[in-house]
Amino acid sequence: MGFDAIEIITAKRDRGELSTAQIDWVIDAYTRGEVADEQMSALLMAILLNGMDRREIADWTQAMIRSGERMDWSSLDRPTADKHSTGGVGDKITLPLAPLVAACGAYVPQLSGRGLGHTGGTLDKLESIPGWRASLSNDEMLGVLRAAGAVVCAAGSGLAPADRKLYALRDVTGTVESIPLIASSIMSKKIAEGTGSLVLDVKVGSGAFMKNVADARELARTMVALGSDAGVRTVALLTAMDRPLGLAVGNALEVQEAVEVLAGGGPQDIVELTVRLAREMLEAAEVAGARDPEEALKDGSAMDAWRRMITAQGGDPDAALPKAAESVEVAAPASGVLTSLDALKVGIAAWRLGAGRARKEDPVSAGAGITLHAKPGDVVREGRPLMTLHADEAGRFERALAALDGAYEIGEPSGDGLLPLVVDRITA
Amino acid sequence: MGFDAIEIITAKRDRGELSTAQIDWVIDAYTRGEVADEQMSALLMAILLNGMDRREIADWTQAMIRSGERMDWSSLDRPTADKHSTGGVGDKITLPLAPLVAACGAYVPQLSGRGLGHTGGTLDKLESIPGWRASLSNDEMLGVLRAAGAVVCAAGSGLAPADRKLYALRDVTGTVESIPLIASSIMSKKIAEGTGSLVLDVKVGSGAFMKNVADARELARTMVALGSDAGVRTVALLTAMDRPLGLAVGNALEVQEAVEVLAGGGPQDIVELTVRLAREMLEAAEVAGARDPEEALKDGSAMDAWRRMITAQGGDPDAALPKAAESVEVAAPASGVLTSLDALKVGIAAWRLGAGRARKEDPVSAGAGITLHAKPGDVVREGRPLMTLHADEAGRFERALAALDGAYEIGEPSGDGLLPLVVDRITA
Repeated sequence: MGFDAIEIITAKRDRGELSTAQIDWVIDAYTRGEVADEQMSALLMAILLNGMDRREIADWTQAMIRSGERMDWSSLDRPTADKHSTGGVGDKITLPLAPLVAACGAYVPQLSGRGLGHTGGTLDKLESIPGWRASLSNDEMLGVLRAAGAVVCAAGSGLAPADRKLYALRDVTGTVESIPLIASSIMSKKIAEGTGSLVLDVKVGSGAFMKNVADARELARTMVALGSDAGVRTVALLTAMDRPLGLAVGNALEVQEAVEVLAGGGPQDIVELTVRLAREMLEAAEVAGARDPEEALKDGSAMDAWRRMITAQGGDPDAALPKAAESVEVAAPASGVLTSLDALKVGIAAWRLGAGRARKEDPVSAGAGITLHAKPGDVVREGRPLMTLHADEAGRFERALAALDGAYEIGEPSGDGLLPLVVDRITA
Repeated sequence: MGFDAIEIITAKRDRGELSTAQIDWVIDAYTRGEVADEQMSALLMAILLNGMDRREIADWTQAMIRSGERMDWSSLDRPTADKHSTGGVGDKITLPLAPLVAACGAYVPQLSGRGLGHTGGTLDKLESIPGWRASLSNDEMLGVLRAAGAVVCAAGSGLAPADRKLYALRDVTGTVESIPLIASSIMSKKIAEGTGSLVLDVKVGSGAFMKNVADARELARTMVALGSDAGVRTVALLTAMDRPLGLAVGNALEVQEAVEVLAGGGPQDIVELTVRLAREMLEAAEVAGARDPEEALKDGSAMDAWRRMITAQGGDPDAALPKAAESVEVAAPASGVLTSLDALKVGIAAWRLGAGRARKEDPVSAGAGITLHAKPGDVVREGRPLMTLHADEAGRFERALAALDGAYEIGEPSGDGLLPLVVDRITA
C-alpha cells in the first residue's frame, strides 16, 4: 500500500487517529529507510504532544515486533516467565530473581540491557563476574535455559530492529518522554522475546524515569494493556524509587549483594521485593505445583540455579569480584534518624564514580559505586560512616561528593514522606 | 556559547520560552550542519504545536537574517518600497504595481519567487516574456533600479540561507502550517532585502494559504510586528481570495492582463487593488511629493517604467507572448447570476493545464491557463462561454475540467457570501 509520510505526520499533528495500515506502513518504511529520520522525528514529536490511543499504541507495538524476528520457547516443557524493570538506583533484583523463579518451576528467558545515565544495567552488573558473556546466539540461549532454567543476555540485532532505530532517534530529538513511545518500545521487545507471562516493575520516585505515581500508573496500565492484547499474561507492580534499593549501588557491589540474597541473607527491601516479584511471576506463568520462593532461597536451590546460570554463560561464580582501588567514607554530620536518602542523587554520585556511562559506547567500572551503611528510618550517629564511595581513581570523589549535596536528611523520625515499597498493583 | 540541541527541543516541547541566545545558537548551528535535520524537524513540530511569542519570533527572524547577507539601498536618492503577497489565484498585481510605484516616486527593489501548487509565481509569469531574466547579481539589480525605478528578480543564495534550508525541511516534515514559521520565513527575506517600507497583501479565502479571516489577521499582525520591530515601516491589507483576481489565470495570460492595466484598462478588481496597494506603498515609504497612481496609469508613465524594467532585464516588451496550442470553452449550464467562482478549484484547474508545478524542479507552461468570461455578480446566459481553458496538449483538459466540478454556482443574485476586495487593514 502506498502512503505518504507527510500525510501521516500532518494527521497526527492535527490530533487525528492513525489507521492500522498507516502505522504499519510508516514503521516498515522507516526501518527500510524510505521515511527519513527528519520525517520520523517530526512524527514522534507530534505523538509525544498529541498522544496515541490504546489501539494506535497496540498497532505501533505490533508493527515494531513485525520488523524483526519473534522468539519461540514452545519446545520447553514448563511455562516461561519474565520480569522487566523500568530502571532505578541499586535495582539488582533481576540477579537473584531469575534463578529463584527458575528454582521454583518456571523458565526465565530474559533479554536485558545496559545502563545509561544514573541507572545501572543488568548486563553491566553481570559482566563484573570474570568470564561471563552477555551475547548469546538463540541456540546458546536455549541451551542455558535448559541447563539452568534461567538466562539473562543481550537482545540480538534481529529483535524489533525498528525499535532499535527509533530509540536512537528519540535519544537525540527530545522525544524520549512519551508514555505511548516508552510503553511500545519496552513491550515490543518483551513480546518479541516470546515469554508467556510478564511482570512489570514500574519504578516511581526521584531515581526513576517516572517521578510521580500518576505517570507511573499510566505507563503501567498502557504496558499491561499492550501485553494482554498480545496474549502475554501481564501484571505490573508500582514500586518505590525515592530511595535506592538495598545497600549497594554499582556493578560488582550489586552482584555481591545479589549473592547474599541467594545465600539467604541480604537487605530486607531487596529480599521482600524479590520474593514478591517471584510470586507474581509464578502466578502469571500459571506454574502447576510451583515451589515457594522463600523456601527456595532458604534451601539453596535458588543459589544452585544462579551458579548453573553463571557457569553456562562462561562465568566463574567462585571468582573474586573486581574491587575499586580507592574509597572514602562519608560520615553522618549529626545524630538522629535518617529521614530521607535521595535515589537520584545517589545514582548520579555512583555514575560519577564510574559505575555508569553518559553515552552508550562508554565503558563502565566494575568496582566503582557506593556502599550504604544506613537506609531511611535507621538511627545514625554523628561522625559514624553513612556511606562509602568506591572508585578506580581518587580524582572522581570530588564531583561524586558534590552530587551528594542535599542527598540525605537527619532529624526526628516522621511517619510520612517515603513511598511504601510496593505502591500499587495493576492488572488487565 | 555552547548550547545543546536536545535541551532546546525539550524546552519548547514542554511549552517553555526559548532565550535569544538559544535561538541564535540553534539557527546558526543548523545552518552550519551541527544541529541535524532530525533535531530541527522535532523542534519545528514543537514550535508548530506550542507556538512562539512575539519576542521569540523576532529573534528567530533576526537569526535567519544574520545567517546571510543584508542588502543596502542607501546609495539611492529616493525611498524604497516593496510589496509581498502571500499568494493567490490570478494574483499578478506585482506586475503593474512595481512600475506604477516607481513612476510615482519610490524605488521598488522586489525579490520574488516561483509558483508551487495551485498558486502562480511572479517570476514564472515574467519569464513568459521572451528574453527576460530572473537572476541578477546585486550590481545588476542596482543598475535596473536606477534605470527603471523598479526591479523584480530572484533572491540570490546569499540571502537568509537558514530560511532556505528550513523551508526545504518544513516542506517534507509536515511543519509548513505554523504562523510563527510562515511569518518569520517571509519577513526574514523581506528585511534582508533592505527595503525601507513594506506593504503585505495577506490573501484570505479558498484559494489562499489562510482560509479564514482570523488566521489571516493573526499572520498579518505577526508580520507587521516583525517588520516594525526591525525598523521597516510595514502595513498589511487582508484581501479577498475566495474568487480569482482579474480574468486571467496563467503565466503569459496574466502578463497580458497586467499590460492592459498599465495601458489604462484591465479588470476593475485588478485596477482597484493595484491603485490601493500603490497608495499604501507610497504612504509607507513617506515619498515626498509622490504622484497619484491613477494619474500615472492614465498618462502612460507607469507603462514607460514597465517597458524600461522589462528591457533592463533582457526582455522584449513588444514581443508576442507565447500562446497555448489547444483550447476548450466551458459554457454556462444555465442562465442567471454567477454567484460564486471558487479560487482554489480554478487554481487547481490552471495547475493541471500546465500553468503550475507540483515540485519546485518541474517546468511550467507559459501559455497554459484559464481566461474567465464572467466574475461573481455578472449575469450569464445558458450556452454562452463562462471560461476558456488553454493548454499545450489536449490531453490535459479532462483532469482540468474535473477540477472545475462544483467550482461555480449560477442562481439568484444574493448580497452575501463574497468577501469585500479589501477585508481589513493592519498597522503596527
